[in-house]
Amino acid sequence: MEGSGTVTGIDDLPVRDELRGKSPYGAPQLDVPVRLNTNENPYPLPEPLVERIAERVREAARDLNRYPDRDAVQLRTELAAYLTRTGGHRVGIENVWAANGSNEVIQQLLQTFGGPGRTAIGFEPSYSMHALIARGTGTGWISGPRNEDFTIDVEASVKAIAENAPDVVFITTPNNPTGSAVPAETVLALYEAAQAAKPSMVIVDEAYIEFSHGDSLLPLLEGRPNLVVSRTMSKAFGAAGLRLGYLAAHPAVVDAVQLVRLPYHLSAITQATALAALEHTDTLLGYVEQLKDERDRLVTELRAAGYEVTESDANFVQFGRFENAQAVWQQILDRGVLVRDNGVPGWLRVSAGTPAENDAFLDAVRELKKEQRV
Amino acid sequence: MEGSGTVTGIDDLPVRDELRGKSPYGAPQLDVPVRLNTNENPYPLPEPLVERIAERVREAARDLNRYPDRDAVQLRTELAAYLTRTGGHRVGIENVWAANGSNEVIQQLLQTFGGPGRTAIGFEPSYSMHALIARGTGTGWISGPRNEDFTIDVEASVKAIAENAPDVVFITTPNNPTGSAVPAETVLALYEAAQAAKPSMVIVDEAYIEFSHGDSLLPLLEGRPNLVVSRTMSKAFGAAGLRLGYLAAHPAVVDAVQLVRLPYHLSAITQATALAALEHTDTLLGYVEQLKDERDRLVTELRAAGYEVTESDANFVQFGRFENAQAVWQQILDRGVLVRDNGVPGWLRVSAGTPAENDAFLDAVRELKKEQRV
Repeated sequence: MEGSGTVTGIDDLPVRDELRGKSPYGAPQLDVPVRLNTNENPYPLPEPLVERIAERVREAARDLNRYPDRDAVQLRTELAAYLTRTGGHRVGIENVWAANGSNEVIQQLLQTFGGPGRTAIGFEPSYSMHALIARGTGTGWISGPRNEDFTIDVEASVKAIAENAPDVVFITTPNNPTGSAVPAETVLALYEAAQAAKPSMVIVDEAYIEFSHGDSLLPLLEGRPNLVVSRTMSKAFGAAGLRLGYLAAHPAVVDAVQLVRLPYHLSAITQATALAALEHTDTLLGYVEQLKDERDRLVTELRAAGYEVTESDANFVQFGRFENAQAVWQQILDRGVLVRDNGVPGWLRVSAGTPAENDAFLDAVRELKKEQRV
Repeated sequence: MEGSGTVTGIDDLPVRDELRGKSPYGAPQLDVPVRLNTNENPYPLPEPLVERIAERVREAARDLNRYPDRDAVQLRTELAAYLTRTGGHRVGIENVWAANGSNEVIQQLLQTFGGPGRTAIGFEPSYSMHALIARGTGTGWISGPRNEDFTIDVEASVKAIAENAPDVVFITTPNNPTGSAVPAETVLALYEAAQAAKPSMVIVDEAYIEFSHGDSLLPLLEGRPNLVVSRTMSKAFGAAGLRLGYLAAHPAVVDAVQLVRLPYHLSAITQATALAALEHTDTLLGYVEQLKDERDRLVTELRAAGYEVTESDANFVQFGRFENAQAVWQQILDRGVLVRDNGVPGWLRVSAGTPAENDAFLDAVRELKKEQRV
């Protein structure tokens, strides 16, 4: 074709205008001894669970020529049982929906309740995929305010909701990358503001809730059909490689997202693996307890070393402050430890690893203080 | 919340207007002896492959606490090798992208090249998910024409492209649900019309190409950066339960879809399972040969029984004509065989099953003729 030899990059293709000049989301995948940058659970799955996964997948593979259960009935039943047991609120299969990672859950929600001509608000800094998935679904994005200490400024947020009347409100608790949980009263105030303004859907992203000092906000679902709680098996279940996210909400929400979900979106292999992991919930939640202790140790030791630390209810800790966070990130990396620069000016984020990994990190940051590099 | 007790269904929620009153996509999942309704491959994976999947998944599960390879390097390398070996055109990893089913591939393409304020055209009847994913991504949909015999009316299609200047053109070959392959000259004519009109992206959906009497259109990629060929492991690889779709295109297209893909969209378990299946390509393509013979037998026997049949290059056959296709669908179901009513007036579609399944189907439809019910 004429001129085709001249195409060298994305901008030579007829891509959407808002994608021009953009880069794909994703932390650098570097080969470093200690990787504490993506909030992964540092504990590999226990060997009996690995064997159980192989067993359930073998069984599923014998039927792999058939499409998977489109409604993931068994998996949603078990996820509902897990939430009921741990979340302080009875949840049934009709309240639960699952997808390939909580990113896909959020994408489906925005395709249903956001999209062209609609807007979503988030209080930043927060999980940056919310804004990116908004862009990917044609949903307008409004960046809401936070206090200096990264808590949600309720008065300012209620005002922002009233003024903008967004169709979707994101609340991340515990918040990523800053770490603190959001009190129930704050969520209630924002929910009520959102209902008064539109009404709009409020999505509470509880990806890290199992690591919190406080409780899940699942009980708030009672009587609030426009509230959605999203969850993931990536963190507490130590299964980031599995890509299994889910939500709990009014049954009408579960019905609604099925209008946009791709049919058979959740593979038979994914369903089998997730079911195996759910059989081992107690063991996996034991690791969560260890990680909470290590998270608390990171907070204490970082403060003892002279760093500022944001209160953490997650499996990571935000620490600072730095004149040049990117330079400190590099200095820590030079010492063999990969942490995350989320672009929050003056701050970095470290995931809670194994005790040995955390020691390596603490040694590195203590050294930086001693050498007066930070 | 006030009034919350009254929410009983989707329409009480603030869903997008265009979703109101709609139903989710999906064929009925009925428990019937012979299921020939979703173009599944009737042959279960061979036991050595099942074992290999369990083995590779066991290995992947040991690292499941870590995010998967975001770029699926090994999988894309093997998919590229498969295409190079079977498609008559050299394809490298830089030309290949993979996702959870070809539906997700198409969704990513529409998020990149379609979306709000843009349009896509398809020539109907064709794979109905193209239009549904257009809706889900806010892309306008234009229904293009076909000839009476379900081939593409080149002159009318070129005219429709020139008049509408769509951003994306879908060509399904072999076409689903009608079955015939599209000649290369037709694709070239439509590609040229699309470039002259906009330029726009042309997506050639080759989900069923391994079953065709003719060749893949992969060689057309040479010198055509706005052409994309999409593929799936659901049919020829007998892995509908795996949800693995992929595309081949200019490297800039692969770069572009990464701006909208959800990070880590493809689980470590999916990558491991697909890699195991690709190790067994020759065995699986052996089943494809058997299915092609059975497909040809279905065509011959249906014609011998007095039915009209559309030429088929796929693992399914469209047959008719019926005054009331829905009633005939039910009569075949009453005889224990589930076929598909795709809403093409006067026609039904049957997937090629095992010889025994096809015999059961042929017995049923011969009986209907004998009893003069059709």
